[in-house]
Amino acid sequence: MIIKNGKLLNFSNMPIITDFSSTVGEKEKAGPLGEYFEHYENDPYFGQKTWEEAETELIRKTVKRVIANSKLKNEDIDFIFAGDLLNQCVSSSHGLINQSEAYVGLYGACSTMALSLATGSIFIESSAANNVICATASHFSSAERQFRQPLEYGGQRPPSAQWTVTGAGAVMLRKTSLKNEKIKIKQVLFGKTEDYGICDANNMGAAMAPAAANTLIDFFKLSNTCPTDYDAIITGDLGTIGSTLLKELCLKEKIDLSKNYCDCGVMIFNNKTQDVHSGGSGCGCSASVLSSYFLPKMKRGELSNILFVATGALLSPTTVQQGKSIPSIAHLINIIKD
Amino acid sequence: MIIKNGKLLNFSNMPIITDFSSTVGEKEKAGPLGEYFEHYENDPYFGQKTWEEAETELIRKTVKRVIANSKLKNEDIDFIFAGDLLNQCVSSSHGLINQSEAYVGLYGACSTMALSLATGSIFIESSAANNVICATASHFSSAERQFRQPLEYGGQRPPSAQWTVTGAGAVMLRKTSLKNEKIKIKQVLFGKTEDYGICDANNMGAAMAPAAANTLIDFFKLSNTCPTDYDAIITGDLGTIGSTLLKELCLKEKIDLSKNYCDCGVMIFNNKTQDVHSGGSGCGCSASVLSSYFLPKMKRGELSNILFVATGALLSPTTVQQGKSIPSIAHLINIIKD
Repeated sequence: MIIKNGKLLNFSNMPIITDFSSTVGEKEKAGPLGEYFEHYENDPYFGQKTWEEAETELIRKTVKRVIANSKLKNEDIDFIFAGDLLNQCVSSSHGLINQSEAYVGLYGACSTMALSLATGSIFIESSAANNVICATASHFSSAERQFRQPLEYGGQRPPSAQWTVTGAGAVMLRKTSLKNEKIKIKQVLFGKTEDYGICDANNMGAAMAPAAANTLIDFFKLSNTCPTDYDAIITGDLGTIGSTLLKELCLKEKIDLSKNYCDCGVMIFNNKTQDVHSGGSGCGCSASVLSSYFLPKMKRGELSNILFVATGALLSPTTVQQGKSIPSIAHLINIIKD
Repeated sequence: MIIKNGKLLNFSNMPIITDFSSTVGEKEKAGPLGEYFEHYENDPYFGQKTWEEAETELIRKTVKRVIANSKLKNEDIDFIFAGDLLNQCVSSSHGLINQSEAYVGLYGACSTMALSLATGSIFIESSAANNVICATASHFSSAERQFRQPLEYGGQRPPSAQWTVTGAGAVMLRKTSLKNEKIKIKQVLFGKTEDYGICDANNMGAAMAPAAANTLIDFFKLSNTCPTDYDAIITGDLGTIGSTLLKELCLKEKIDLSKNYCDCGVMIFNNKTQDVHSGGSGCGCSASVLSSYFLPKMKRGELSNILFVATGALLSPTTVQQGKSIPSIAHLINIIKD
């Protein structure tokens, strides 16, 4: 049953995270979290001919692997919730062709992993589904071509720019599990579309930080908790600039994130040696870090109560060229070890 | 409560469709359904400067109007489920900035109206929400520029091509209604991503017909009903070619759609005088026709049991240029007058 507290949704049964999988590219493997990813490939084309096919292969393989990890048959899976950054979300729809499960296409930009987990949880909690997959992917080269310049152009990047992660994450959510799994989704808070007038597509951390702040402030108010009630508060890909801004914005509301806050975009690369400027981004960033680093840590009992807040910058190259500001959104998932 | 019968989801409480609104452009107003649309504008720019801003305005105004029709306050609305065809779904995210409701971005191409209604229904039925808006829009000129050629180019269109509808539809779904409304969503069937090898982006009806056929065949099997049990079976925008194919594909499975089948893409334009080749398309097509023609007919008691099956062609200009085939999907909604 779902108990609604304002816009905060509490799950009385709590969907179970039974399995997860992650795939990344060479640069992510070489980063500080390299040892944690389940799978990586040195070939940036993932055996394909185009960057778009590479991203398609990335999500396809990661979803295939989470199904294998779960030991479920394809026909036992009711839904797949997925989306990505490519125009018309083609890496998800093409990567998941002819699967037996129903396909719910989502678009939340870099918030997609949290959006898919939140939506998937409601489907499970409502008995609309028993087993669902939540997945997303991004690829540096397809994103550069589409959002900025083709790689061959060699354009310079300002210090506030972020580096799109080549990576995918997939999570299996289940209503019941024979394996006595303990990682569960306790509550979710969907975000609103908000616009703070940032127009610089090379500073997406600044565009997204207010959305993350608002979702977190709403959450602490509605749940009557404070940051130290959680083992970790994890944002998706605010990067160094955005995560500094988030801490400042929260502090203004007397919410101190200094103890246990981290950002997947800051964690995934070594900012000093990997030339990524403000850090990692792309919906594969938080998806792969959640599925490789945080969920296994929960499984091992090293973390037992986390907030996962993935943020999305809702821009397109056309809106940026037209001088429009960048609305953003942040969805929150509270994951516990029961 | 949701009762799951295979992949068919039955709602025991049944979310109520209390209000709807539609907006179209001049060409749609001049078509056979012209008198039914709630609102239209002669200015193809909808008072804005770019086609993308026009589409943004189209969804913004339609959502505003469905809220006004419902007499609800903004803060009473829990969620808005929306998506569109523009890259990164920007007309929805930009059109719905700073609304108080949580935003769930969906991407289902032209199936978006059915996808939003199906997802919204589950949120209502599960008690995750009391009031939600499901909305989508498309615009001929923004779609031409993005998917085909800029209008100024004056490219010729083959006879199998369809004409993107300039239109938007929005539906208010509620858990309870004081107004004793009777239009309810009884069951939904989410579709799978399917690929039949069609590579011609100028023949999307052919790409989408098999997805519609499979969803309908699955539905009749799972619900143990036949086409004549319904007052109308409505597809989204298969157009003349796609809807002919759908009837043929269903007939092969001994499902005869000849009695009560229609397609919004065929209905919205006069095929003989309006130069639209195979008919209308775009996610605003089925959204505006459902919200202006079919739902009011149900309200007046002229229809009491319909199947709304919106289909989506999951292509992007990049995948088409790369010679990829076009996967497609169809989601089904059974709407009844209780």
